[in-house]
Amino acid sequence: MKIALAQLNYHIGNFESNTAKIIAGIQKAKAEGADLVVFAELCICGYPARDFLEFTEFINLCEEAAQKIAAECIGIACILGIPTPNHNPQGKDLNNSAYFIEDGKVKAIVNKALLPNYDVFDEYRYFEPSTQFNCIDFKGKRIALTICEDLWNTIENPLYITRPMDVLIEQQPDVMINIAASPFAYNHDEERIAILSDNAQRYKLPLFYVNHVGAQTELIFDGGSLVFDSNGKIADEMPYFAEDLKYYTLADDGSISFEHASTAKESRQTDIEQIHQGLILGIRDYFHKSGFKQAILGLSGGIDSAVVCALAAEALGPENVMAVLLPSKFSSDHSIKDAQDLITNLGCLSETVNIAHITDAFEQQLHPQFKNLPFNIAEENIQSRSRAVILMAMCNKFGYILLNTSNKSEAAVGYGTLYGDMCGGISVLGDVYKTQVFQLARYINRNKEIIPINSIVKPPSAELRPGQKDTDSLPEYDVLDKIIEEYVEKRCSSAQIIKLGYESSTVQRVIKMINNAEHKRYQTPPILRVSPKAFGMGRRMPIVGKYLA
Amino acid sequence: MKIALAQLNYHIGNFESNTAKIIAGIQKAKAEGADLVVFAELCICGYPARDFLEFTEFINLCEEAAQKIAAECIGIACILGIPTPNHNPQGKDLNNSAYFIEDGKVKAIVNKALLPNYDVFDEYRYFEPSTQFNCIDFKGKRIALTICEDLWNTIENPLYITRPMDVLIEQQPDVMINIAASPFAYNHDEERIAILSDNAQRYKLPLFYVNHVGAQTELIFDGGSLVFDSNGKIADEMPYFAEDLKYYTLADDGSISFEHASTAKESRQTDIEQIHQGLILGIRDYFHKSGFKQAILGLSGGIDSAVVCALAAEALGPENVMAVLLPSKFSSDHSIKDAQDLITNLGCLSETVNIAHITDAFEQQLHPQFKNLPFNIAEENIQSRSRAVILMAMCNKFGYILLNTSNKSEAAVGYGTLYGDMCGGISVLGDVYKTQVFQLARYINRNKEIIPINSIVKPPSAELRPGQKDTDSLPEYDVLDKIIEEYVEKRCSSAQIIKLGYESSTVQRVIKMINNAEHKRYQTPPILRVSPKAFGMGRRMPIVGKYLA
Repeated sequence: MKIALAQLNYHIGNFESNTAKIIAGIQKAKAEGADLVVFAELCICGYPARDFLEFTEFINLCEEAAQKIAAECIGIACILGIPTPNHNPQGKDLNNSAYFIEDGKVKAIVNKALLPNYDVFDEYRYFEPSTQFNCIDFKGKRIALTICEDLWNTIENPLYITRPMDVLIEQQPDVMINIAASPFAYNHDEERIAILSDNAQRYKLPLFYVNHVGAQTELIFDGGSLVFDSNGKIADEMPYFAEDLKYYTLADDGSISFEHASTAKESRQTDIEQIHQGLILGIRDYFHKSGFKQAILGLSGGIDSAVVCALAAEALGPENVMAVLLPSKFSSDHSIKDAQDLITNLGCLSETVNIAHITDAFEQQLHPQFKNLPFNIAEENIQSRSRAVILMAMCNKFGYILLNTSNKSEAAVGYGTLYGDMCGGISVLGDVYKTQVFQLARYINRNKEIIPINSIVKPPSAELRPGQKDTDSLPEYDVLDKIIEEYVEKRCSSAQIIKLGYESSTVQRVIKMINNAEHKRYQTPPILRVSPKAFGMGRRMPIVGKYLA
Repeated sequence: MKIALAQLNYHIGNFESNTAKIIAGIQKAKAEGADLVVFAELCICGYPARDFLEFTEFINLCEEAAQKIAAECIGIACILGIPTPNHNPQGKDLNNSAYFIEDGKVKAIVNKALLPNYDVFDEYRYFEPSTQFNCIDFKGKRIALTICEDLWNTIENPLYITRPMDVLIEQQPDVMINIAASPFAYNHDEERIAILSDNAQRYKLPLFYVNHVGAQTELIFDGGSLVFDSNGKIADEMPYFAEDLKYYTLADDGSISFEHASTAKESRQTDIEQIHQGLILGIRDYFHKSGFKQAILGLSGGIDSAVVCALAAEALGPENVMAVLLPSKFSSDHSIKDAQDLITNLGCLSETVNIAHITDAFEQQLHPQFKNLPFNIAEENIQSRSRAVILMAMCNKFGYILLNTSNKSEAAVGYGTLYGDMCGGISVLGDVYKTQVFQLARYINRNKEIIPINSIVKPPSAELRPGQKDTDSLPEYDVLDKIIEEYVEKRCSSAQIIKLGYESSTVQRVIKMINNAEHKRYQTPPILRVSPKAFGMGRRMPIVGKYLA
């Protein structure tokens, strides 16, 4: 049996383009003589469609698209993911389903049983879990078809009471197929491989696994669809961060053959390589899928905006990136030079708008209220917010989207100005720690100096007052990032973190800053997620509350 | 048996104050000779504690608090809500539990079975549903104790497969007790009464129901705890939007007696009266629980900011409300006069900061980029954003929190400036349609003119260009609000809305505006929720997607 795996980039709610892509995949696979082509979980509508799923019209459009696709399945079968009405009057309105389509008709429907409802997932909000499990017979093979999480309930981490494959295996299937929507995090590919390999080994069956690729606002899907033999050994690993359609022949003895192995995987990509590719895909899809072409950002001469500028230039082309220098009276000469060097190196567009007259105007108008109170965070933030007003005015005038340049360390401790440098349509580095931003910068410079070395080696500063340095307000970033990771990602208590060897007062101060910044993070742009725990939809904290510290 | 119902205002994560409140309630009830005092669902930690629940330390602190409380339960029993570890290695980490405490010890634990996971609720994110149901014997009575949603699975709307009371009733209980965390919406009190009455009738048992009161950022809990006789008739309805502790005697024949009926309820409060009380509680608790005292807002002379100013003055005292006039060259004289009249009527603080020089400075600095391109939304938004910079600067200098004054109609169609008038710590009217804002204004003026009539009767305008009116860009508000309600709250398709008699092009234009504003709403402040479907945590839409229209 020749099986095609279609790893495609869908667009949420865009039935026209998703349907066209799926039909093109079917036609191509058919032309290549495939018996079956497999598409990803909920590919009909894109993932995650979120509360679109509560609109009856949306569900109807999914079914309409499926019927159009079914008409193409003559001489080839296909598996695709689709939300379907739950016909049981009890329980949730929908099922998260897979259609098995053959001879132009839906021949079997499989519903997902294990519905992830943690971190970024809300599947129990919409779907009723399945309690019935049946294999599908096709051309002399019995297929155990499951959907994503259905294979993720491990013995080590038993998230759910049931395990669908334990029921299906009793029907003596020949092969497992799993369709998924498994978002990227820099450590997730290895976890995915381990869990799927464990399934293949446990059930002694070959396994075909198809994932999404492409970004849906904050969630990036990295592809990396997989084929395992019945010993749990990887037979093939499809590309990461790119679409692909590949063919595999499943022999009667369960062995798998195919023509071209994907790029040799002697060594896995490093975290930074993956983050780099993920962010570029994230930026590109954000713009393309929202119908915009050109990005704008404020370029300070510091490392964060330099890295965002370089990533945007790679994602959109330097001719579509407008870098704006916004110097104030506190901007150092070297910052301006570093910013200009970067623009030259990248060949992107640039403008300079000095903010000194504007901040003067604010301070003058506010003099009756502020009188002679000392310069403090109020005046610092006026600078940052004036820059945001200028960048947004250019967006409004010329149709750019503003890229946010805050990193995860800043987002964590609230080291940023709400409605100032925290503005933007999408946050590129909001899930990248400052220490990782340095690594990204060096990676971007791997072949030649793109980001001026000076931007990398000088001490980070917001330059909102004379001689300011980040370390005036924050611990060194290597310490800060570790404490954030322990608290935010691992949810450790201060006592546990202190036990790791960090200074007690520093730990408590950092945790307090993280908690106090909840109200700021609530209003920040969506953040491209690259870690297992990003700020945004995957971390939901109360705003008004008394926090642990 | 004398039962006390404690309807209290908790603070999320504030174990100190919650524990003190609960212990005070126990001591008072004991002094009054009560046998049992009942507190609300998850009262130990406040509701919703959200991802705090994923921190082991948080769960430990809940248990510590419960032990402290248990020590007080000598000579009186108590029921309280608490998250507890799920000791089954399979499934979620926690249960949503009720402790029955007697003689200083936890005598029984009941776990919630039906976990709401729709709209603002995420309970399946944290809790494993219970599958075991047992009554509690206490002083010769058998109590069927359930938690909130456990009684909400109706025959008409069977959200779940199981119904805990159907199991419990077989154990022949004498009384039902339900502890809840049921947030306010202007139509929710009647729904609650109908469903609980239906339970009392169906199971032919008296029912005691205890709710939270108080606001937790966006969610407002309105109290209104209830007592029903075994015919489903309301015996008593506790106050709305206020704390209370009341005593009821349950006789052996199941009849209920008590001393003072709550304020006679000949007629229920109107929607607007409820919204008015809810918003005042929402503002007050937002400030008190976050440790702030003083609010600031921009006062335009229009009706939205006038209503917010009046609500804030009532919630915080006029001496804690700073109203700032921020006139531009487009501000009309009558707007300034209307704003000044309101300030006089309320007696709140005020300042005036003219923005003309500031917007001039922006336009001058941007002249090399903008050249002689015509005045458009870029310059309009510079005005709105300059006002935000001033208001935020005053927050930073003096410690105010900015109140957002956008209404639900504007939030829906994106008729507002991101980082401009969409700024604020909390949105007061973001769940109140413009047509309801007019009703609120008239209600605020019910005894005397507080909001100048001119602010109510003049055509709404953002005054960002000469002669601008809202109706230049939007349909009349009575039409607009209805279309928004049909689409956002009822999730109707455009075809369904057009069938109701609205013009096809208007419907499609409005739906398109609503969808196009998703990215703006993502970055707005938390909105006080007063309707069954508010923007914010209860409505989760993709940002980049192709939308229905």
